[in-house]
Amino acid sequence: MRKAIINFLKSNKDNYISGEEIAKSLDISRAAVWKHIQILRQLGYKISSCEKRGYKLEELPDLLLSDEIQFDLNTKIIGKNIVHYFSIDSTNRIAKELAGNNFENGTVIVAEEQTGGKGRLNRSFFSPKSKSILFSLILRPDLLPREAPKFTLLAAVAVASAMIKFDLKPSIKWPNDILFDGRKVVGILTEMSAEMSKINYIVVGVGINVNINREEFPPEIREIAASLSEIKGKNISRVEFFKVLLEEFDQLYQEVIQNGFKKIFDLWRKYNITLGKKIRVIPAGEEKEFFAVAEDIDEDGTLIVKTENGIEKVYAGDVSIRE
Amino acid sequence: MRKAIINFLKSNKDNYISGEEIAKSLDISRAAVWKHIQILRQLGYKISSCEKRGYKLEELPDLLLSDEIQFDLNTKIIGKNIVHYFSIDSTNRIAKELAGNNFENGTVIVAEEQTGGKGRLNRSFFSPKSKSILFSLILRPDLLPREAPKFTLLAAVAVASAMIKFDLKPSIKWPNDILFDGRKVVGILTEMSAEMSKINYIVVGVGINVNINREEFPPEIREIAASLSEIKGKNISRVEFFKVLLEEFDQLYQEVIQNGFKKIFDLWRKYNITLGKKIRVIPAGEEKEFFAVAEDIDEDGTLIVKTENGIEKVYAGDVSIRE
Repeated sequence: MRKAIINFLKSNKDNYISGEEIAKSLDISRAAVWKHIQILRQLGYKISSCEKRGYKLEELPDLLLSDEIQFDLNTKIIGKNIVHYFSIDSTNRIAKELAGNNFENGTVIVAEEQTGGKGRLNRSFFSPKSKSILFSLILRPDLLPREAPKFTLLAAVAVASAMIKFDLKPSIKWPNDILFDGRKVVGILTEMSAEMSKINYIVVGVGINVNINREEFPPEIREIAASLSEIKGKNISRVEFFKVLLEEFDQLYQEVIQNGFKKIFDLWRKYNITLGKKIRVIPAGEEKEFFAVAEDIDEDGTLIVKTENGIEKVYAGDVSIRE
Repeated sequence: MRKAIINFLKSNKDNYISGEEIAKSLDISRAAVWKHIQILRQLGYKISSCEKRGYKLEELPDLLLSDEIQFDLNTKIIGKNIVHYFSIDSTNRIAKELAGNNFENGTVIVAEEQTGGKGRLNRSFFSPKSKSILFSLILRPDLLPREAPKFTLLAAVAVASAMIKFDLKPSIKWPNDILFDGRKVVGILTEMSAEMSKINYIVVGVGINVNINREEFPPEIREIAASLSEIKGKNISRVEFFKVLLEEFDQLYQEVIQNGFKKIFDLWRKYNITLGKKIRVIPAGEEKEFFAVAEDIDEDGTLIVKTENGIEKVYAGDVSIRE
């Protein structure tokens, strides 16, 4: 019903429309209309009202409400079901819980704020309210667990593709960080539940710094964090960016299901800033670092590097670019 | 307290011991002793009582109670925490839930009966009450997710090693079924939760047919199921077998953490009946079957087979032995 009222207001967005007309069209009472309008205002919709003339939608909220995201969303799989939170400890945690309760492939969990957001290896992720895009996707590809790490590259390519549609140049650092000027704009945390012979589900968590000024970042991460608005030079509509991102993700996901990861890896190579560079590698679970030249990714998304001792594979770990 | 009373009775197992003596030693009332004895009897302990003389332990229950399993259990990691159910839908389901709630490495969940036990790919697993050993282990190795499938081979080797201690010849079919006369005695279902760069936890679910006569199996699985008692020719103590199995598992797990999987794979090769045989393969997630000769397992536990078209790898799937 709320969705119907929003659509009604949207389709009459230059004019006042009377509560009576809305009530009549939707077959509800005028009091019910008034109640819904109050709720919409609380959600951030700016709706002016004028005696005798009725209601007029002045401004949409830049909140990632499911109604707003699903409006004209052009996807086949991703985002048919969107669960929105104003504040949550972690969208990945909720996504895993819902996935365990059989929520469908493509379900999106999105939050305005995370109180316990985590990056890889339990690192915390800064997210001021309604200035980031924080979401997790539930995916259920009919693939072996060994294919799962590739989805983390897919996620990076999806964000990069969305950035291009907003005239923002993406720079992917292996495997899936997106950087600006060496500072991190996007973090991705992919988790999975699997049997040995099948993936139960994958949860892809994505955190994007969207409209955060440099001085808004806490001092301890100011030198390592950046945002889309900093790259763009002005604020970006979170709703619009998120919709484009879900559409890109949807297309890439379908591509993978139909044709495998070849196209994803080609796009990843196109947008990456790691290959060909001298890098420092700290392999996952190890203390020791080493230096190498990043050569390529293989058909598993594993990073192939050249060291003094020859070619080595980096399955997971921290990479920083030295030149 | 219950544990103390059991130990008291065990250490005086040829004699009657008075309620008063037990009460005094444990500093509880005689009424409390009587109450505990009633509970123990309900749990299956056969305790005779005789006016003036007191209580005597006649027979231990063959139930996989934590008190019984942990009694003299010689392990470092596995089974420090044991959660016992008389009946549960699935020990793997509970294990995943507990693992998500930070239950420790080595936690054992064991049940007398599963009402919704599942094998790989959602296949159901028959388990008449207190005639099987049905348990799940929570493991938290500090390894990459790509190492996880190897634990399913480790589990098979652990069961095989326990069988040898009971003079039973193990026959492992790749990756982890244990057969007798071509029929299945043990099923293993390994699941994991992981980030791309670390395992959150592995749950190894094991179902062993112990004391089940052939005619007790439902007709539809009688031709494909067997039990340890059938191999042995007589019943086996579930408690004793389970303790030996946990001890074997504990040693193999420590071996892996310290030295990797080499020894596990050597033992797997020793106990397997797949390598060198002509097999039919139905790869996971595919409809198509093909025939091949099983050549070896590689350093990931992947099955290497030779077909007309050359060498192929089987990461997961169903294998049946043709000759």
